[in-house]
Amino acid sequence: MSDGAMTEHLHLVSESRSFGGTQSVFRHASAVCGTEMTFGAYLPPQAALGPVPVLWYLSGLTCTHENAMVKAGLQAHAAKAGIALVFPDTSPRGPGVADDGAYDLGQGAGFYVNATRDPWKPHYQMYDYITRELRGVVEAALPVGEAHGITGHSMGGHGALTLAFRNPGLYRSVSAFAPIVNPTRSDWGRKQLSAYLGEDEADWAVYDACLLLADLGWERDILIDQGADDQFLDLLRPEALAALMAGRRQPGVLRIQAGYDHSYFFVASFGEDHVNWHAERLHAA
Amino acid sequence: MSDGAMTEHLHLVSESRSFGGTQSVFRHASAVCGTEMTFGAYLPPQAALGPVPVLWYLSGLTCTHENAMVKAGLQAHAAKAGIALVFPDTSPRGPGVADDGAYDLGQGAGFYVNATRDPWKPHYQMYDYITRELRGVVEAALPVGEAHGITGHSMGGHGALTLAFRNPGLYRSVSAFAPIVNPTRSDWGRKQLSAYLGEDEADWAVYDACLLLADLGWERDILIDQGADDQFLDLLRPEALAALMAGRRQPGVLRIQAGYDHSYFFVASFGEDHVNWHAERLHAA
Repeated sequence: MSDGAMTEHLHLVSESRSFGGTQSVFRHASAVCGTEMTFGAYLPPQAALGPVPVLWYLSGLTCTHENAMVKAGLQAHAAKAGIALVFPDTSPRGPGVADDGAYDLGQGAGFYVNATRDPWKPHYQMYDYITRELRGVVEAALPVGEAHGITGHSMGGHGALTLAFRNPGLYRSVSAFAPIVNPTRSDWGRKQLSAYLGEDEADWAVYDACLLLADLGWERDILIDQGADDQFLDLLRPEALAALMAGRRQPGVLRIQAGYDHSYFFVASFGEDHVNWHAERLHAA
Repeated sequence: MSDGAMTEHLHLVSESRSFGGTQSVFRHASAVCGTEMTFGAYLPPQAALGPVPVLWYLSGLTCTHENAMVKAGLQAHAAKAGIALVFPDTSPRGPGVADDGAYDLGQGAGFYVNATRDPWKPHYQMYDYITRELRGVVEAALPVGEAHGITGHSMGGHGALTLAFRNPGLYRSVSAFAPIVNPTRSDWGRKQLSAYLGEDEADWAVYDACLLLADLGWERDILIDQGADDQFLDLLRPEALAALMAGRRQPGVLRIQAGYDHSYFFVASFGEDHVNWHAERLHAA
């Protein structure tokens, strides 16, 4: 680990050997979120030889940095493919951070936006935190190269798609598991966007994957997996993205997986495909 | 599912598609434990075509049926190998069941013994529960054949080795991850065996893998993985089993894995090897 200014406050919480590589958890003082933040990082065996590409995994509602790290089984595939993984938290946390009793607002539900309304504004800056601050921390502290990809599940799939579409220079590959694709038209979205951004729906558009794709496009391809027996299909609205991708002739693959629900059993079942999808594109970058 | 008497009280708690198969959780009234018990079961895709072999996974201290089911990543390998998995709980549970404030006694710490002392005796009958009652439930309710193997982690590795050594007719293959191998000589063992069985150490011997192997032998081979950086090496005592296996010319493999600790990152890293080890032996049985 380098000892530059970016990492002087990076605290190693835990470290475990995993598939020949290293699964670590770090805590650091986030200037952007105004609180301490925790994240997981997996380095494959190949990282001992030099910088490796990195895949960001954004988690869904109620998750911390830990859920995917211990349940998705991605380390096995990352070790084979020679890419690093980063598992950020889904919101700022702590006693001084605003929260809400509901599972889908406040802590554990940051929606990867920069809040502009109180009481959320002082800490809920997850868009900047992921795209700028944590990226800088990761690049300074870990042996990763310039090739970054991004994926996520549910609310984290929404995060992956919106962060990629708005930042094609930062992310060279994008995929998602059961993403919220059209939050301006869903109860997983309207409630949170109005709370974090206010009632003017024009301000919401930069956080809606369908609106962004229609507006900005995406020059590369996209991989989406969606369980056909997902309990939350009406909130995820995959049909909106499917119609848009088909209408725009957007390169990509949207797979409807028969029998699968919204759980991590679904994510784990297709994790190898996603890791390999990113690895192919990131190693070629 | 058949609807025989064994299964009439089997309640399906959840069901998720996983790697083309099905991960279920069941609850049932246990006569042996005198309380409701919960277990997980994974059926690979091949189970749709006919009975498959089954691998029992016994978990460690503090675990429920759920930990390995969501963290060990074994379903991916079981799906390829065509074997079922069963994830029992580690103790009886519930308001009427005796417990202890410590993490290593009472609920979550059944040690796979039949307790003979109060307050544990009425419910803590995990040896009979696993080898007889739950086996009957599984065989009646699920499309599994007669070939059963057993593995486990830490306290569950102790359970796997002791149940197999005492019941070679029930288990055709055995392996373990970081098992407690000599509990009569360890603080992970003496405390619990004295509580559950009383102070006469002669009664403890049938629950000690090293004493059982010395007494009964094991005609087949054994696979053990042990992390070299395990935090609990002094409690697990792998050197006792290593010396015994070498001294007896016991067929088997004991692997000391450099850098690995006691966590599920260790179990997951070698899960494929264990599933394949059992699958080879169970399919040939």
